[in-house]
Amino acid sequence: MSEEKPKTGITYIEPGKIRIKGYDIVELMGRKSFADVVYLILKGELPSEAEARMMDAILTSSVDHGVTPPSSLASRTVISGGNPLNAAVAGGILTIGDTHGGAIEQCARILQQWAAKEGDTREIAAMLLEDLNSKNRRMPGFGHRLHKTDPRTVRLFGMADELNFFGKHQKLAREIESIFAEKGKALPINVDGAIGAVISDMGFDWRLGKGFFIISRAVGLVAHAHEELTREKPMRKLGISDYEYDGPPARKIDG
Amino acid sequence: MSEEKPKTGITYIEPGKIRIKGYDIVELMGRKSFADVVYLILKGELPSEAEARMMDAILTSSVDHGVTPPSSLASRTVISGGNPLNAAVAGGILTIGDTHGGAIEQCARILQQWAAKEGDTREIAAMLLEDLNSKNRRMPGFGHRLHKTDPRTVRLFGMADELNFFGKHQKLAREIESIFAEKGKALPINVDGAIGAVISDMGFDWRLGKGFFIISRAVGLVAHAHEELTREKPMRKLGISDYEYDGPPARKIDG
Amino acid sequence: MSEEKPKTGITYIEPGKIRIKGYDIVELMGRKSFADVVYLILKGELPSEAEARMMDAILTSSVDHGVTPPSSLASRTVISGGNPLNAAVAGGILTIGDTHGGAIEQCARILQQWAAKEGDTREIAAMLLEDLNSKNRRMPGFGHRLHKTDPRTVRLFGMADELNFFGKHQKLAREIESIFAEKGKALPINVDGAIGAVISDMGFDWRLGKGFFIISRAVGLVAHAHEELTREKPMRKLGISDYEYDGPPARKIDG
Amino acid sequence: MSEEKPKTGITYIEPGKIRIKGYDIVELMGRKSFADVVYLILKGELPSEAEARMMDAILTSSVDHGVTPPSSLASRTVISGGNPLNAAVAGGILTIGDTHGGAIEQCARILQQWAAKEGDTREIAAMLLEDLNSKNRRMPGFGHRLHKTDPRTVRLFGMADELNFFGKHQKLAREIESIFAEKGKALPINVDGAIGAVISDMGFDWRLGKGFFIISRAVGLVAHAHEELTREKPMRKLGISDYEYDGPPARKIDG
Repeated sequence: MSEEKPKTGITYIEPGKIRIKGYDIVELMGRKSFADVVYLILKGELPSEAEARMMDAILTSSVDHGVTPPSSLASRTVISGGNPLNAAVAGGILTIGDTHGGAIEQCARILQQWAAKEGDTREIAAMLLEDLNSKNRRMPGFGHRLHKTDPRTVRLFGMADELNFFGKHQKLAREIESIFAEKGKALPINVDGAIGAVISDMGFDWRLGKGFFIISRAVGLVAHAHEELTREKPMRKLGISDYEYDGPPARKIDG
Repeated sequence: MSEEKPKTGITYIEPGKIRIKGYDIVELMGRKSFADVVYLILKGELPSEAEARMMDAILTSSVDHGVTPPSSLASRTVISGGNPLNAAVAGGILTIGDTHGGAIEQCARILQQWAAKEGDTREIAAMLLEDLNSKNRRMPGFGHRLHKTDPRTVRLFGMADELNFFGKHQKLAREIESIFAEKGKALPINVDGAIGAVISDMGFDWRLGKGFFIISRAVGLVAHAHEELTREKPMRKLGISDYEYDGPPARKIDG
Repeated sequence: MSEEKPKTGITYIEPGKIRIKGYDIVELMGRKSFADVVYLILKGELPSEAEARMMDAILTSSVDHGVTPPSSLASRTVISGGNPLNAAVAGGILTIGDTHGGAIEQCARILQQWAAKEGDTREIAAMLLEDLNSKNRRMPGFGHRLHKTDPRTVRLFGMADELNFFGKHQKLAREIESIFAEKGKALPINVDGAIGAVISDMGFDWRLGKGFFIISRAVGLVAHAHEELTREKPMRKLGISDYEYDGPPARKIDG
Repeated sequence: MSEEKPKTGITYIEPGKIRIKGYDIVELMGRKSFADVVYLILKGELPSEAEARMMDAILTSSVDHGVTPPSSLASRTVISGGNPLNAAVAGGILTIGDTHGGAIEQCARILQQWAAKEGDTREIAAMLLEDLNSKNRRMPGFGHRLHKTDPRTVRLFGMADELNFFGKHQKLAREIESIFAEKGKALPINVDGAIGAVISDMGFDWRLGKGFFIISRAVGLVAHAHEELTREKPMRKLGISDYEYDGPPARKIDG
């Protein structure tokens, strides 16, 4: 049962000293943004300015989607029963799965596997879909029950283009979308698919895919649990009924 | 069992449109940082530049503390057993509690309750400690098993001072620390206590306290689960043995 | 960081040998029922025949309550998203709280605290309610949104009576119920309250209260997760709509 | 978004009435054991006397394995941090995975798939192992880090034999074990493998495999969380150090 000393490459700790991927946490605080630090810890290096802007947009894109996603309902239900905030967020994160945030991972995995092949992207896309079809599987990250065109996808791809992150994974995703469209299937790339494609072009391991969603949505789950705790009576019977939004009205960012 | 239509003030959703606290998510993406959006969703308004810098520092301060905290061990254990990334992060978040991240909430609660009283801060601090003492309770957010002086506290308070967020809650925390010191107790404000004091001076509800830690540490937990998954054999027997750090060596932020 | 060797009084392990509270697990298997072993591990001793029958009834009483409780919905949602069975059950267990299973603990705590006082049970019940009232709290374990008279309560109290477990905690619970009734409040003892009273009369620590519910309901949650997995398409939008029961029709135990 | 009324075949609920798989819960309470009810809810029918005894033994076999398994550590860590009992048990259940309880499911899946083939069991066992080998996978449910011969396996197989549940799945498992032995590999069937084989011969769906472990071990996790809460100071630094057993000494079941 003896084991050699285990290793970690993330954080170095000694009394009075904490270094994240080699950088003193005290230096990072105040000089780098939180998204920079997320990038650093997941990728190993601090981002360029373009990478940092892309990262901010990715993390913002999934921050919340209202009360109806299973994760919001679960978090509200857990805190409504008298449990602490961390149990509420954990309950919400447990519901993340194949078609709720989990598609990022699956989409990135498939894109990374197929985009590595040589040849014409259009033909690769067709082969990929045939392969999925033969296994009776669907392409993850396409289609949305509510949004016909996912505005977050448009924005992420627009920014990726502008910041020079448009690469073979986004190209492959676009070809898949257009094959669907030609077959008359309205299966546009949703935000999960878009993130899966963009992080692939940024060089992230697909196995981190769900991680981007978790980090981002944890924020929304904290907000939902807190709203439930402070606005509602305990132990509400929570369902997927329509909610009325009564927060700030539509407004613009100043400046 | 009929209920009036439930309400939410966080996010407005309609086909093709997502608004966070009134702001179109597409506008937020690319124009605002992730920490801005965290601030917006928790506080209801976009931060000033100073508030944004403070928020970045707070979220960075708790991003990771190596392999030994219970949350890192739990996340690694869950993924090591063949579970998905979201279950791993949920397992880690469940371990957050009174003296692991949870102290933010408790410390902020006490500081907000007592700092609201009129009178000399020093006297209030003394009364507060007497009150806790009479209930046989300890002041949360003070003392650390490893760091004699927590470098993150020094940085957070330094930034709060510089950015004009030093207020009555930090003052009260400082007085508590100095009473401890006078009694010969080495119980310096730790990072949880510092965050509890700073967010109180920024006007956040104490019941969000654990939320800052959860949002921040979710990043580290994703990193630990991913490292475990990609570097180790499944079902390691994980313990609190010493770890050897083999990541990037100490380095400086360029520029 | 050196600590003295930690202790446990539950299970002794050595190669080829497992003893639960001193009993060889191999002897327990086949000679004792599962409920006997639950009793043993929670109480420290094997049950008498009467205690064993009471334990079987308690564990059976909470085994399931259909699709609508938050725990069933959460477990179904988690597995529906593509997560493993253990994550589904964990998600369900997280939703257990003050008025969903959690009332056992709170009710037992209050009953154990007040039944320890000397005096007339009726007067103690009145004082207890006054005390709760003055703190603006409700008595946990009374009232049910669906069952006017909870049939499980009737059965548990009937069995407790027959098996000679009717003691001061059930007596106190009965007095509370009758004070409610006299005030015109229909707040009959629900199954959580009944379990809280019975386990108190059996000598169990109130801090184990939620444990009885967790052990029992874990069974129902496994069944719900499995039914969701095998009968439904992935990622259903799960809510609290009415469910149609299509299992075996009403039937009687043979013999 | 309109859906037809969803269905469930587990529990029927109406005011004052709860039926589990058609049986009135009030009739089950007191007339049937908890293990009977577990069998009923997972299998759809009440067990015969032999099935009930086998079920009791299966559920008892996994009830606890001391402090060192990841699930015990996780549950103790969560409650040690100030979280409620249900969060502690949920944390423990999350750690169940491929080689901690999870092997039941994987082993049963493989046994059910291969035992369905026609031919000589020995040859099927050889082909099965070749197939796993070619995929670079190991046979789940064989080998144990501590027990050379798992006493629980011996007991379960002995009882299955005596109660006439020895069928083709146990036979296949035995052949696999003997092929390992002939190759000089000490990979005896462990308790997970034994349960996987026995429940397969009893006709349970392999997808319920982890469920038996979860239902059983939930008991041990409640006991560990309660012991941690009542015997230890909060926020212990929990690891996999040796534990000293200080519970009841070795003893025999009376009679």
